[in-house]
Amino acid sequence: MHIQVILRVIGLLIMIFSVALLPPIVVSLIYNDGALMAFVYALIINLVGGLVVWFPFRNHRGDLKIRDGFLVTVLFWTTLGLFGSVPFLLTTSPDLSYTDALFESMSGLTTTGATILTAIDDLPQSILFYRQWLQWLGGMGIIVLAVAIMPMLGVGGMQLYRAETPGPVKDSKLTPRIAETAKALWYIYATLTLLCAIGYWAAGMTLFDAICHSFSTVAIGGFSTHDASIGYFNSVTIEIICTVFMVISAINFGMHFYAWRTRSVWHYFKDPEARFFFFLLLSTIVLATLVLILTSTYEWSDSLRYAVFETVSIATTSGFSTSDFSVWPHFLPFLLIVTSFAGGCASSTGGGMKVIRILLILKQGFREIQRLVHPNAVIPVKVGGKAIQERVVSAVWGFFSAYLLVYVMLMIGLMATGIDQVTAWSAVAATLNNLGPGLGEVSANFASINDPAKWMLCFSMLLGRLEVFTLLVLFTPMFWQK
Amino acid sequence: MHIQVILRVIGLLIMIFSVALLPPIVVSLIYNDGALMAFVYALIINLVGGLVVWFPFRNHRGDLKIRDGFLVTVLFWTTLGLFGSVPFLLTTSPDLSYTDALFESMSGLTTTGATILTAIDDLPQSILFYRQWLQWLGGMGIIVLAVAIMPMLGVGGMQLYRAETPGPVKDSKLTPRIAETAKALWYIYATLTLLCAIGYWAAGMTLFDAICHSFSTVAIGGFSTHDASIGYFNSVTIEIICTVFMVISAINFGMHFYAWRTRSVWHYFKDPEARFFFFLLLSTIVLATLVLILTSTYEWSDSLRYAVFETVSIATTSGFSTSDFSVWPHFLPFLLIVTSFAGGCASSTGGGMKVIRILLILKQGFREIQRLVHPNAVIPVKVGGKAIQERVVSAVWGFFSAYLLVYVMLMIGLMATGIDQVTAWSAVAATLNNLGPGLGEVSANFASINDPAKWMLCFSMLLGRLEVFTLLVLFTPMFWQK
Ligand SMILES: [K+]
Ligand SMILES: [K+]
Repeated sequence: MHIQVILRVIGLLIMIFSVALLPPIVVSLIYNDGALMAFVYALIINLVGGLVVWFPFRNHRGDLKIRDGFLVTVLFWTTLGLFGSVPFLLTTSPDLSYTDALFESMSGLTTTGATILTAIDDLPQSILFYRQWLQWLGGMGIIVLAVAIMPMLGVGGMQLYRAETPGPVKDSKLTPRIAETAKALWYIYATLTLLCAIGYWAAGMTLFDAICHSFSTVAIGGFSTHDASIGYFNSVTIEIICTVFMVISAINFGMHFYAWRTRSVWHYFKDPEARFFFFLLLSTIVLATLVLILTSTYEWSDSLRYAVFETVSIATTSGFSTSDFSVWPHFLPFLLIVTSFAGGCASSTGGGMKVIRILLILKQGFREIQRLVHPNAVIPVKVGGKAIQERVVSAVWGFFSAYLLVYVMLMIGLMATGIDQVTAWSAVAATLNNLGPGLGEVSANFASINDPAKWMLCFSMLLGRLEVFTLLVLFTPMFWQK
Repeated sequence: MHIQVILRVIGLLIMIFSVALLPPIVVSLIYNDGALMAFVYALIINLVGGLVVWFPFRNHRGDLKIRDGFLVTVLFWTTLGLFGSVPFLLTTSPDLSYTDALFESMSGLTTTGATILTAIDDLPQSILFYRQWLQWLGGMGIIVLAVAIMPMLGVGGMQLYRAETPGPVKDSKLTPRIAETAKALWYIYATLTLLCAIGYWAAGMTLFDAICHSFSTVAIGGFSTHDASIGYFNSVTIEIICTVFMVISAINFGMHFYAWRTRSVWHYFKDPEARFFFFLLLSTIVLATLVLILTSTYEWSDSLRYAVFETVSIATTSGFSTSDFSVWPHFLPFLLIVTSFAGGCASSTGGGMKVIRILLILKQGFREIQRLVHPNAVIPVKVGGKAIQERVVSAVWGFFSAYLLVYVMLMIGLMATGIDQVTAWSAVAATLNNLGPGLGEVSANFASINDPAKWMLCFSMLLGRLEVFTLLVLFTPMFWQK
């Protein structure tokens, strides 16, 4: 372990993050919204905080190894979560407790989008901007995490993507890979954000709303500048733009990279994960539309409209809303939350367990049936005609069971604080899948939840974003040995 | 596939089952309870029904092969479920619909113990006896299934137990193995039942109640002759006897066989599965007792008493009750139902996913963490110092995911009929884990549930008892080819 080098990196990171407070300062100056000093003080605190961590280790250089990646990754998200909460703490509108400030910051950076705020429309513009900005920055972090770090660490079968990422894979050094891969994909990320913002603006959003929502759309974050979320605009055009960009952002960014290089789109429809993702989306949309029509919840055109938007929003783990799906009839609220367990594709900004893992699990489940009928046959699990290593398959299973175990533990924890089963179930889904909204008490926001529960849910967001194992591994003595 | 041979066997089975209607006829004669003719007609219907199936194929002989085992097993349970429901249909007290009669019969034979009956205390003795008797017969079937058939079929990793079962394993013929293994273990099963009945009787139950409850205890069935279940007797001694026999019956019957042969008990505490089972039971009991004391739900002595009984009853998937745990505070109802997912040990009469599978899943989850820290090490999954074949491990994963997939589908199905999420969740757990009682609407009985839901739950009991795959495999075209 290169603790000193790691601390130097984290110190630098905090200082760099203080620069990220400049845009909200500019927003506050433009709108003169009274939140200026909160951001100025936060900038100073971050800069000083970063210096304090960095200074003692400023001369410790050296390449980080793969195993350091776990600690760096976890420290990256926890530190930014903590320092990101400072503006929320310092501002008087909203006037937040430390728990709430941390919850909002963590929810932003992990692109979860669960909020403890109410009356969002009345908040200072700079605070509104900052929330969206946190999600966008979080999305940048996720891309590096998903495309460069997770495949290298091999978390939950993600070594599957080692060969597919751009750049050389030969050496085990962490730093050069990240830089190279990140640059290419951030370019795509920024371009998508720009296109999305232009789309929103052209469709009638104010420039401020267009920029803010483009941030949280491409990051699959789900924060909005309005209590009514995308429903505030009541515009089919905006909903279509939002839907398109949610779907794009939930697809493997490596595919976008390929599309950029080759100026072609056909590979999207050849990729087994993307195809399965489209299949899940379409079948859920059809089912939801039918149920909404048959139960006369809406007229048929509205049924389609709301079913498309809410399904895409929940299944991609965005968490925007145009209607309150938590009161839809029968199994629809349950079903939609269940789709968020699959979530986005690997190497996207989406949450959940990732579509490729669900696909592998189903394929291996089917292989087990084949093995029962043909006990002596050797049957590989194939995706797109390619046999998957047994090691990857078993890593996916390990991920799946760890995910469920953590899920049940968190539910029990929440229920111990007095929360009812449905709220607890959906609150864990909303955070562990980095989704945002839940059912029951947490269908609109997380304000009414008790503080210990909020801390557990912060941990849950972090677990989800770090693919469970990255965080769990730090709790084993094994990791710290040697 | 040897369809004709299979039909001959099933026909014979139905005729043999008609003999099983003689004991309730004797009970009805003794008590003169008015239900006599229901059983007499049922006996005739079963005898004739069996003849009709058997007669055309009476000359089709030949050994059944392993693959035939799936069809025989599924037909065994579905046919007995159907024919077992005849007395419930014919009797006028209770006066049941066809759905309810089938539900009760299936719940008995699968040793689920979920009931659609209310005011049980007032029913004719022969009907009461018959319900308990069905569970006992079901338990006999489960032992054959678990000890002889599942290991041979290799369902969900149960090939793990191939070497451990008594008798020669060399040939692939189904029949001799079953007969030999069954005889040895039925002997143990009958002895346990006798001891349990004597215990109950000595502790103050009437002879009738003692016999009836010994049937459902050793079968881990959970049916009772009283609405208040074991709580009716309000006797600590009876509760202790019941607890002891529930635990014994939830342990691998191969271990009892070994205890019988070697006159020793130490192997129980050396077996990794049994140890983990004890650990799960004890830790849940401690936790439940503490919560009950801290929340002042009961006084401390009652807290221990109820926590021990309900935990053992739910965790072993027995489903007896001495108090209504569904209204216990916080997470306790949820936690107890969660323990039923682990259920009994393999090759016991218990339900759930089986303790050994949960142990293997946890061990492999831990291996994944080890692999993250030491990416190049070859790390086998070991149980009791013995490395487990990768094939077995992946079969267990396949089982786990199929179980969860079926679980979610059944929940969606139930909720589509208008059942709320908590009731649906617990009703599927109660049936798929062959547990019995649930939460919400189904905490006391399943009477208020709609008919389509009851059919789904019958299917769920069958899926649970047949370890999901045995039934699912019949729905694949692959199974029927060649
Ligand atoms: K989100
Ligand atoms: K039971």
